[in-house]
Amino acid sequence: MARIAGRNPVLEAIKSGRGFDRLLVQRDAGGSMLNLVREARARGIQISFEDRRALDGLSGGASHQGVVAFVSDYSYADMGDMLKAAADRGEPPLIVVLDGIEDPHNLGAVIRTAECAGAHGVVIPKRRAAGLTDTVAKTSAGAIEHVPVARVGNLSRAIGELKEAGLWAAALDMGGQPYFGMDLTGGLALVVGGEGAGLGRLVRESCDFAVSIPMSGRIGSLNASNAAAVLLYEARRQRSTGKGG
Amino acid sequence: MARIAGRNPVLEAIKSGRGFDRLLVQRDAGGSMLNLVREARARGIQISFEDRRALDGLSGGASHQGVVAFVSDYSYADMGDMLKAAADRGEPPLIVVLDGIEDPHNLGAVIRTAECAGAHGVVIPKRRAAGLTDTVAKTSAGAIEHVPVARVGNLSRAIGELKEAGLWAAALDMGGQPYFGMDLTGGLALVVGGEGAGLGRLVRESCDFAVSIPMSGRIGSLNASNAAAVLLYEARRQRSTGKGG
Repeated sequence: MARIAGRNPVLEAIKSGRGFDRLLVQRDAGGSMLNLVREARARGIQISFEDRRALDGLSGGASHQGVVAFVSDYSYADMGDMLKAAADRGEPPLIVVLDGIEDPHNLGAVIRTAECAGAHGVVIPKRRAAGLTDTVAKTSAGAIEHVPVARVGNLSRAIGELKEAGLWAAALDMGGQPYFGMDLTGGLALVVGGEGAGLGRLVRESCDFAVSIPMSGRIGSLNASNAAAVLLYEARRQRSTGKGG
Repeated sequence: MARIAGRNPVLEAIKSGRGFDRLLVQRDAGGSMLNLVREARARGIQISFEDRRALDGLSGGASHQGVVAFVSDYSYADMGDMLKAAADRGEPPLIVVLDGIEDPHNLGAVIRTAECAGAHGVVIPKRRAAGLTDTVAKTSAGAIEHVPVARVGNLSRAIGELKEAGLWAAALDMGGQPYFGMDLTGGLALVVGGEGAGLGRLVRESCDFAVSIPMSGRIGSLNASNAAAVLLYEARRQRSTGKGG
């Protein structure tokens, strides 16, 4: 069972058809809450109207904006499903592989951007990394309900499987070739390292090549979610305009 | 007086020539701390070596990695200095204007990405927005020491001044023209809204045009720092490759 707080995350969970255990709405809430209530009713979800104080107590300290829900646990997807989704949509796969992102806000931001850029999934390791939690759900602005997230025991092996499926595996690494002018229109697994240590050696060596984001200033790197955003949207731009590189 | 904790933020502060009041280093720290100590000594900064427990007490709860510094307050820059810096470097100005970013992590991430993408400054409003704090400094990974940040009383007026200086003011807005294929090589003020409300009406109307980031999924927007990252790096890519649009 997971708890979701806040209007956008709850609305996205409603729209996604997720199983709701309880949906609690602040009695005197207005504005965008009317739409949320309508969407919930249209899907047969029972709503309890409560005082603000009751929601404060149930929100676990999160800013709830008048709505808290208890829903079925986040479920992890299979990498095969991501590849199938890409094939069904007739698109070259675009998948983000995260090596050791420990901050749930960073994970949530990457999932949000993956959804916005039209990526087909996110792969995370089982150990030493953030999993899917309420904080991730909230930071993802509800994208966690739409983007398949696979959790794997061995990242190098997962990258190997994506390569066997025909994807290019690109390690985001300072020593790599600048992405300016690089063709990102083919099936692509973008492998991004965590906040501190960056990519593990084995993971980097599992990739076909390394790509870098040129740094103009005196700081060595972007944060993980911003770096992923830059490359995911460059891939999206190239795919949309038909201009590779 | 501001407190900085953590190796990278303190090292960046040292390199920037900032005024140090106290620099406290954990007695038994090794690794990258040796370089930090060397850099501080080269600039004549006095170092006090302390026990870990003393640093824990002085770090204000932040993860300090064995180093805490007390430095002069962050100072705000003038927009004129940003334009002059661009002119001195022979570059068309690239400036980020933030309307109501309240989360210091988001502000720090934008400042970090602005530095990495080679932007000349960040403009924030005095009211209802995060200012330059220790949290912003830490999230910026030290970029706060390099990127000029101006704080203005009236954002619309500031945008007007940038336009008078020859910049195009682009409002990042869902209703705008997709940035795919848009020429971003000229002097540009990129105006980005806050987490909740987005851009204020007056601010949006002060801009020359609106630009959007195409959304492929079922979520309406990126978070502010990821959105800024996508557009700042598209501007950087076009300037570096000489390909506008």
